[in-house]
Amino acid sequence: MTTKKSKLKVIPLGGLGEVGKNITLFEYKKDIVIVDCGIAFPDESMFGIDIVLPDYTYLVNNKDRVKAIVLTHGHEDHIGGIPYLLKELNVPIYGTKLTIGLVENKLNEHKLLDTTERIVVKPKDVVKIGGFEIEFIRTNHSIADSVALFIKCEAAKVLHTGDFKIDYNPIDDEVIDLKRFAELGTEGVDLLMADSTNVELPGYTLSESSVGKTFMELFNGVKSRILVASFASSVHRVQQIADAAIAHNRKIALSGRSMINVSNTALELGYLHIPQDALVDIRDINKYDPSEIVVISTGSQGEPLAALSRMAAGEYRQLSINAGDLVIISASPIPGNEKMINRVINNLYKLGANVIYEKLADIHVSGHAKQEELKLVHTLVKPKNFVPVHGEYRMLMHHAKLAQELGMCEENTIVAENGGVIEVDETGCKVIGKVPSGITLVDGLGIGDVGNIVLRDRKHLSEDGLFIVVVTLSKGKTVAGPDVISRGFVYVRESEELINNARRVVKEALSRCEEKNIYEWNKIKGEIKESLDQFLFEKTKRKPMILPILMEV
Amino acid sequence: MTTKKSKLKVIPLGGLGEVGKNITLFEYKKDIVIVDCGIAFPDESMFGIDIVLPDYTYLVNNKDRVKAIVLTHGHEDHIGGIPYLLKELNVPIYGTKLTIGLVENKLNEHKLLDTTERIVVKPKDVVKIGGFEIEFIRTNHSIADSVALFIKCEAAKVLHTGDFKIDYNPIDDEVIDLKRFAELGTEGVDLLMADSTNVELPGYTLSESSVGKTFMELFNGVKSRILVASFASSVHRVQQIADAAIAHNRKIALSGRSMINVSNTALELGYLHIPQDALVDIRDINKYDPSEIVVISTGSQGEPLAALSRMAAGEYRQLSINAGDLVIISASPIPGNEKMINRVINNLYKLGANVIYEKLADIHVSGHAKQEELKLVHTLVKPKNFVPVHGEYRMLMHHAKLAQELGMCEENTIVAENGGVIEVDETGCKVIGKVPSGITLVDGLGIGDVGNIVLRDRKHLSEDGLFIVVVTLSKGKTVAGPDVISRGFVYVRESEELINNARRVVKEALSRCEEKNIYEWNKIKGEIKESLDQFLFEKTKRKPMILPILMEV
Repeated sequence: MTTKKSKLKVIPLGGLGEVGKNITLFEYKKDIVIVDCGIAFPDESMFGIDIVLPDYTYLVNNKDRVKAIVLTHGHEDHIGGIPYLLKELNVPIYGTKLTIGLVENKLNEHKLLDTTERIVVKPKDVVKIGGFEIEFIRTNHSIADSVALFIKCEAAKVLHTGDFKIDYNPIDDEVIDLKRFAELGTEGVDLLMADSTNVELPGYTLSESSVGKTFMELFNGVKSRILVASFASSVHRVQQIADAAIAHNRKIALSGRSMINVSNTALELGYLHIPQDALVDIRDINKYDPSEIVVISTGSQGEPLAALSRMAAGEYRQLSINAGDLVIISASPIPGNEKMINRVINNLYKLGANVIYEKLADIHVSGHAKQEELKLVHTLVKPKNFVPVHGEYRMLMHHAKLAQELGMCEENTIVAENGGVIEVDETGCKVIGKVPSGITLVDGLGIGDVGNIVLRDRKHLSEDGLFIVVVTLSKGKTVAGPDVISRGFVYVRESEELINNARRVVKEALSRCEEKNIYEWNKIKGEIKESLDQFLFEKTKRKPMILPILMEV
Repeated sequence: MTTKKSKLKVIPLGGLGEVGKNITLFEYKKDIVIVDCGIAFPDESMFGIDIVLPDYTYLVNNKDRVKAIVLTHGHEDHIGGIPYLLKELNVPIYGTKLTIGLVENKLNEHKLLDTTERIVVKPKDVVKIGGFEIEFIRTNHSIADSVALFIKCEAAKVLHTGDFKIDYNPIDDEVIDLKRFAELGTEGVDLLMADSTNVELPGYTLSESSVGKTFMELFNGVKSRILVASFASSVHRVQQIADAAIAHNRKIALSGRSMINVSNTALELGYLHIPQDALVDIRDINKYDPSEIVVISTGSQGEPLAALSRMAAGEYRQLSINAGDLVIISASPIPGNEKMINRVINNLYKLGANVIYEKLADIHVSGHAKQEELKLVHTLVKPKNFVPVHGEYRMLMHHAKLAQELGMCEENTIVAENGGVIEVDETGCKVIGKVPSGITLVDGLGIGDVGNIVLRDRKHLSEDGLFIVVVTLSKGKTVAGPDVISRGFVYVRESEELINNARRVVKEALSRCEEKNIYEWNKIKGEIKESLDQFLFEKTKRKPMILPILMEV
C-alpha cells in the first residue's frame, strides 16, 4: 500500500479573464515557482491609477516556499511586477538574455540590482529549481528571445507556451521549436497552458518579415524625413525599420525614453544590429538632409506623453513635424486606444505630414498565434488536459472550444480564473479551491492605498464636481459662514444666483436645526447635505459631492 | 455694367474635423437655411458631460434671417440639436416622413411640438425656401428615408450628399437615385459636399440585405432564446431580424427605451412591417418556450445603461440571461467603445450565453460609402468644386485626395473647418472668413455653464482627489482647526500618519504666517497650499487639489 501521492498545484494569480498582469504559481510539495510577474494597465474606471498589480497575499504568506521567478519573455505584462514583488520576497530570476537584460533595467531603476540574483538561460537549457525541472523552449513572439516552459515535477508535466506565434521566417532565424513540441507530445504532457489572445481570429498570423517588405516599398523614392512609431520592445520591428533605413542611405535616430532604453539593451546584447555610424542623436538630425533621416519613436498607441503624440501636438522639443514628413505608425490599436491614435493621426495631418497607418498599409503583424497555429500546437502536444491562459473570458472560452473541436473532452478543458487552484497529476486535472486574488492599485508612490472608496470618490468628483459648505459654530449658533465653495460644478461667474440661492438653502437648514434644538453635528451636516442635494439637483440635474464642514470656536 | 453679384455662402458649424454634430448653413443674400442640426457625444476628457452642441452664436445673432432647418436623415448627429436650437429661434423643419417622425418624438419630450412647424417631404420634391430651391434626392444609409439635398440659389448649385452608401438591394427597394445624380452632373454642380466617414476603406460597402442572410443562417436550428442587439435607428436591420424571427416561428419582443420608441414610430409610419400578433411585450416572454422568442434590444455599443449591458451585468429586471441563450451583437464598435463592448461579451459568456459578434460572423454592414462608391458619385456629379464633410481631419484629407485622383485640381478641393465661410458661385469656391464656432457643453439642465475651467477641475479631482484645509481665525490667530479633510486621495484609515503629518505641516505654515505678521488671507492660503503641495507630493508623488478655507469670527 502506498501513501497518497502529492499533486502539482497550478495557481494563476493574474492573466485569466484579462489581457495583462500574467503570473502563475507552480506549487509542488513545499516548493513554489513563479512563472512571469507582470502588471496590467488601469481601465477607464481607475481614475488616477498608474499601474495595476495582482494581489500578492498568497505569495507573501508563503514567502519561504518561493524558490524562483521564471520568465517567458520581456513584455511589461510579464515582467513589470518584479520590482514590486521583490519588495516582499527575494528570489532568483531565470530568463533568456534579452528578458533578463530588460529586467535589469527595471531593477536598476528600483535600486534592486545588487540584491537580486539573475540567471540567464538559453533555449534547450534545463534548470532544476527545488522539486521542479524546467526546460526552456524557443518560441516566436513580438519581442525577441521568447520561450515556452516545460515544467516537470514528480507528479505531472506541464507545457506553458508563454505568448507565442509561429513564424517560419523570423528576423533572427530562430523558428519556434516545433520539433520539441512534437517530442513532448510523444513523451506525454499532462497539462497544456496556451496563449489565447488571438483565438477569435481564423487563419495564421503573418511572419514578422512581411512587414519589412512593406517598409522597403514605403521608403522607396521618398525625399522627406521618415518617422516610424512602434513598440519599443518590438526589437525585430526596430531591426527591420533600421534595415530599410540603411538600404535607403538614411541615418537612424531613436526617440522616446523606452525606445532608447530598450534598443540600447538590445544593441548591447546583440539582439539588434545597427552599425554605430548609422545611428545619430535625435538632437543632430537637423544637420542632415530630410532624405537622410529615419526617426524611430515611441507613441504608436497615441499615449499622450509618448514622443509621437507630443510631436503631433507640436510639444516635442527635439523634433517638429514639417509639412511633407512621412509618418508611419507601425502598430495596431490596443482596444481602448483607438481615439487617442486617431487624434494623433489627425494632428499629424494638420501639420502637413503624410501618415501611413494600419488601415492604409500592412505595416503591422500580431505577435500572437491565430486559430490555425493554435490547432497545430494542440495537435503536436496532444495534452491530457488544457487550461487556456492569457485572455479575456470570452477568449478562454473560445480556446477551450477549439481544444474540444480537436477531440478533447469537455472535462479536460478547464476555464479557470485568477486565484483558482488547479490540481494536476497523471490521473487528471481540476480546480480544487481558491487563494486570495484580485488587484492592488499603484498611484504614485502608493501601493494599495487607493481602493474602491477612493476610486468611487474620484469618479463622483469627475462627473459633477464638488460643493463645500463651511460653517463656524459657537454653542450651536452660527458665528461665521455659511461659506460655499464649488469646484468642477458650474462656471461660478455665470452662476452667481445659483450659488447665492445655495447659500440661502444652507442658512435655512441651519435655522431649522436651531429651531428644533438639533446640536449633533452629524445631524446638522445631514440636514445641510440633504437640502442642498435636493436644491442643486432640481436646479441643475447634477449631483455634486457635497461636503458640509462644521467648526466650533 | 453690372453691380457685383452676391455669392452663396456655405458655413459648416459642425461636422468638419469630427464625426458628430453636423450642421451647415447656406446663406444667400438675406436668407439662411440650416442643413441638419446634430449633437456630438462627449470625448473622454469631457468629464460628466452629457452631450455636445455646436456654438449657435452666429445663428442667434442672425436669428431673423434663418428661414428653415432642412434634414437629410434622422440620426442623432443630424437631428439631436434641434430642441436646443429651437430654444433660440423658431423656424419650420423640413424632412422626409421618418425623419420628421423621429424629430417629433424629440419635440414632444421637450414640449416644443405645438410651437414648431414641420413639413414632410418626399424624394424628388422641390421646396422653395426664401431665395433657395431645395430638391430632396433618395439615398441609402443605415437609417431609412435618407436623402441628399440639391440646393440652388441664383449664385450657385450645391449637392450635399448627407450620409450615404450605395445599396443595390436595399430592404425597402428604394435604391439611391443615381440617375438624378447623373442628371445633375450634366446640368452642372458648382459644389459637391460628400460624406467622408469611410473614405479610408477600399472597395464597396456591402448591401444591408447581406446581413439578413446571416441572421437566417444563425437562427437555423437554434432551440434557445435569441437576443439581437443593434442600433434602434437601424430600422432595416430591425426589419431583417424580425423577418428572420418570423421565418423561424418566433415572436418578437423589443427591449430598451430607444428601441421601443424608434420602432414604434417606424411601425406607425410604415417603415417597419411586423404583424401585430408577432410582437409580444418583453414582460411576457417567459410565457413562451425559449425557442419561440427573439428579443431585439439596444446596447450594441456596450453603453452601460442600455438594455444589453444591464442584462449582461444581471441588472435588467425584465430579462435574465440564461445559460444557452444566443446573443447576437449586430454592430461594429464605434471607436472608443471597444472595451465596453468586450466587457459585455465577457459578462454574457460568464452567464453561459453563446455570443456572436463582429469578429465571428458577418452580422453588420456600414451605412457609409467606401472608396469605390465615393468615386462613382464624384464621377457622376462631376462637380466644379468639392468640400469633403462628415469626417475627422484625416478623412477629409483623404477624401480631397480621392477627388484629386479623379482629376480635380487641388485648388478646387477645399478642406474647410467648422466656422469657415466658404463662398461659392459659378466662378469658383474659396474660404473667405470665419464665424464663431466651437462647442457648447450640456450637463444635466445646464447648457454652456460647464467650460474649460470646470472640466480642468473635474480632471484634476479625478486624478488625485481633493485635500481641504479649514481654519477659523480671529484677529489673525487660529481659534479652531486646522481641520483637514480629503476625498479621492488616499484610503484615510490606512493613512492616518500621513493625514496627521499634513495637519502638522499646515500648523507650521500658520505659525510662520503669524511670526511674519502675514494677515492677508490670500498670502496665508498661498503659504498653506504651497507647503502642503510639496509635502504631499514628496510623500505620495500625487498632486491632489488643495483647497485652503479660512473663516473669521
